[in-house]
Amino acid sequence: MTTAQLSPTDRTTVTRGRNRMVSDRDELHRFLADALVAHLGVVVGDHPLVLPTAYAVDLHGPDEGGSLYVHGSVAAGWLRQAAGATVCVTVTELDGLVAGRSAFHHSMNYCSAVVIGPARVVDDEAERARALDLIVDHMVPGRAATLRASTRKELAATAVLAVPLHEASMKARAGGPVDEPSDVEAGVWGGHIPLRRVSTGAVSGEDSHDRVPDDVARRAASYSAR
Amino acid sequence: MTTAQLSPTDRTTVTRGRNRMVSDRDELHRFLADALVAHLGVVVGDHPLVLPTAYAVDLHGPDEGGSLYVHGSVAAGWLRQAAGATVCVTVTELDGLVAGRSAFHHSMNYCSAVVIGPARVVDDEAERARALDLIVDHMVPGRAATLRASTRKELAATAVLAVPLHEASMKARAGGPVDEPSDVEAGVWGGHIPLRRVSTGAVSGEDSHDRVPDDVARRAASYSAR
Repeated sequence: MTTAQLSPTDRTTVTRGRNRMVSDRDELHRFLADALVAHLGVVVGDHPLVLPTAYAVDLHGPDEGGSLYVHGSVAAGWLRQAAGATVCVTVTELDGLVAGRSAFHHSMNYCSAVVIGPARVVDDEAERARALDLIVDHMVPGRAATLRASTRKELAATAVLAVPLHEASMKARAGGPVDEPSDVEAGVWGGHIPLRRVSTGAVSGEDSHDRVPDDVARRAASYSAR
Repeated sequence: MTTAQLSPTDRTTVTRGRNRMVSDRDELHRFLADALVAHLGVVVGDHPLVLPTAYAVDLHGPDEGGSLYVHGSVAAGWLRQAAGATVCVTVTELDGLVAGRSAFHHSMNYCSAVVIGPARVVDDEAERARALDLIVDHMVPGRAATLRASTRKELAATAVLAVPLHEASMKARAGGPVDEPSDVEAGVWGGHIPLRRVSTGAVSGEDSHDRVPDDVARRAASYSAR
């Protein structure tokens, strides 16, 4: 079973819609590099809590399969709950709406990765600094190297968690609807609405008198509508 | 405390970044109507599982504060785990990347709603049909009324869960970075990259010989890049 590549355990084995499963580690890495927002799931008491967060991946990080990093304020309650616990990090990008010929065959085009593993608090200063740089560079590639060093106070206020990429699954759907043959034969319309993220360009802050840095301009251009 | 409007309990009270909290029920409803993807968090055994899903809201649904509906295959494991349990439904839309003058002040512009509550399996046939119509109409407004009725087999294959909107919180961030005054004074550039979803228009399926229906064309046009 090809799922073994990405899903060494039952927890992330996709049991529904196997046809939508992507079982290629490189594809997982490419997707995680491209996507922007993660949803981190933590068990808090008797219920789950799911919060959106920035993230970054270090394929050569110390965790099995590489490390996925998230960060937050040391004062954030969810970070304390997550530390040492098993968490779920899900990254999803929506690619379109699928307007099937019946309600049942309506769907969405998307790509989604689910990573489950123990959240490790990153204490090592070098790893922490690298993880924080990676999170900045994930937003704007190359930017971390152009910024001043973080102060001790800033670092002390920031917690970093690492989750191993070892236990991961990925699903993707693309294209038009897969409808009932009878609805197709009846001549009913079916199709999809592709969606993507675009930017109209970088906006300088009111107090910014310098020109937009090259890395920021490049990042904005990568989301150009053209 | 204004959080009381949206967060009647501690579970959804935003403890970090209070300045980013939106405490207006109408704003929550507008946001949930506009956004497209929810992330549903369920506790499975000893760990959380977070999955992306379509959703819809019925402000006049039978649950306290209105009902948020998600659906899935009756054979999906997560649905069985969620039924009767407390779940977390988080809806996030990314609006931009914030390139601060320091790593610490990098951020994202976004809006996110967190709903926590007991997941109720919708057994009532009328409510189920209405919820499924709402999920289709959430993707393409007005579309449910144009489709054939779902078959008994299709309905039997679909499970619907309702979560009360009662316990909800919302956070939003917009605009440029909030930097250290010393970095602003030093003349370092700071700004942001606005992002939004656009569509290049509806795509008819290969077997579709009819023209794109008005509701689908209107929905695609609502994501026009212009």
